[in-house]
Amino acid sequence: MERIEHRACFEGWQDVYRHQSATLGCSMNFAIYLPPQAAHGPVPVLYWLSGLTCTEQNFISKAGAQRYAAEHGIAIVAPDTSPRGDDVADDAAYDLGKGAGFYLNATQAPWAAHYRMHDYVAEELPALIEAHFPVTSARAISGHSMGGHGALTLALRNPGRYRSVSAFSPIVAPSQVPWGEKAFTAYLGPDQAAWQAWDAVALMANVAERLPLRVEQGVGDEFLEKQLRPELLQAACDAVGYPLQLNLQPGYDHSYYFIASFIGEHVAWHAQYLHA
Amino acid sequence: MERIEHRACFEGWQDVYRHQSATLGCSMNFAIYLPPQAAHGPVPVLYWLSGLTCTEQNFISKAGAQRYAAEHGIAIVAPDTSPRGDDVADDAAYDLGKGAGFYLNATQAPWAAHYRMHDYVAEELPALIEAHFPVTSARAISGHSMGGHGALTLALRNPGRYRSVSAFSPIVAPSQVPWGEKAFTAYLGPDQAAWQAWDAVALMANVAERLPLRVEQGVGDEFLEKQLRPELLQAACDAVGYPLQLNLQPGYDHSYYFIASFIGEHVAWHAQYLHA
Repeated sequence: MERIEHRACFEGWQDVYRHQSATLGCSMNFAIYLPPQAAHGPVPVLYWLSGLTCTEQNFISKAGAQRYAAEHGIAIVAPDTSPRGDDVADDAAYDLGKGAGFYLNATQAPWAAHYRMHDYVAEELPALIEAHFPVTSARAISGHSMGGHGALTLALRNPGRYRSVSAFSPIVAPSQVPWGEKAFTAYLGPDQAAWQAWDAVALMANVAERLPLRVEQGVGDEFLEKQLRPELLQAACDAVGYPLQLNLQPGYDHSYYFIASFIGEHVAWHAQYLHA
Repeated sequence: MERIEHRACFEGWQDVYRHQSATLGCSMNFAIYLPPQAAHGPVPVLYWLSGLTCTEQNFISKAGAQRYAAEHGIAIVAPDTSPRGDDVADDAAYDLGKGAGFYLNATQAPWAAHYRMHDYVAEELPALIEAHFPVTSARAISGHSMGGHGALTLALRNPGRYRSVSAFSPIVAPSQVPWGEKAFTAYLGPDQAAWQAWDAVALMANVAERLPLRVEQGVGDEFLEKQLRPELLQAACDAVGYPLQLNLQPGYDHSYYFIASFIGEHVAWHAQYLHA
């Protein structure tokens, strides 16, 4: 594991590391913000999953989350959004292949060889973080758009792993929207029965754990009606009596200006569970 | 004037406009953040000048200043860093030509035709802003690196125009450092007497106004000793008894992670003068 960036930020450190991932079979970058409190003892970790086309850089340079992580004494880990490198299958489109891993384990050629982002984020990455950094095993998870789908499905598939889960503008029902239909057909094949294990709305029907769940959604989001459809998550939660805090924010769009405007509230919200 | 971006951000709006600049003879973009208070009445304006290679985008996407502008009821205007377009002279290097206007009025060919960023920022842009947006004529100015040089020289050359001036990691004495020597030779010619009118340390000797002046400088800045040299500004201020608040911040580098860490303090500091 090699540190490739190291920058002072809000009295802590915004670092980026590169390591060889056994799960993905390639070299991966991840970002970690260590708040000032980490110099004095272990701190809990918020995992952040980014959206389509992003790398580990987008969230750390645009969201302004470090201020709040420093305020609440929380580390933030932001991985890349897919396996990387010349050996990794790709597609010319922005919504398939590199930059579009969808936080699942692919079963279809040519994707299955490397695209195992679920296992990377759920298992290999936290094991690495907890072995090498001053952190506790208290974990929360959040993300944006494709990464909001990732946060929701990671939490729903892995009871006991996280204290709380939130999402910004998530793809809540990938089986029912164009982005998800395209990616799932490629990564998982045409049999839609196999898709249900990677779809938050479908997983909610058999939910095993009642984590605190918060979703922030801009009402001015250009992808709201076609790709995101938060009403499907609301209905799925209502059907099983799962408490969902769904905040619809008038005017806000799909951009990092929306994330920046509300990430402070999300970090504070996760902090109450991470420090409990 | 055409609005090309319009994004909700911290209950205000982060917009980008394009207009034809008479001063520069080309089409220019500028960013303006209008805080929520601007919906109810005019607000003062902080002008932000970015550094080498930047456009109007860098500050608005990376600094996280909107939170503080919303908190204090201040608009922030961020212009591009040079004239733009196919008709505008350029150089292959990152530190000359487009993206490197140095906030001066060039006198040498081929630069003199368009490179008049001083007059654009000091006169045309505020006139445009004050004619078309809900702002007062209370102005402050700040910037980073080349833009820190810009903020200092704009304030020193234009008494009565600003209420306060600050800078992050500024080039305080361009006449004495490689970035400035290269740019000034090209834009102003080899006669160093002509350079003094665009050099904050030289201008300080005949300063006409005692504005509140604050400089933030990272001690871990990779350009500190060769290009920035804040000790020259400290000496020039000491020589004329000009009060300078020079904050040396251990560990911080030249990046936007440094700006993000202290922009809140700068916005609050400017606010006390802008609202006085």
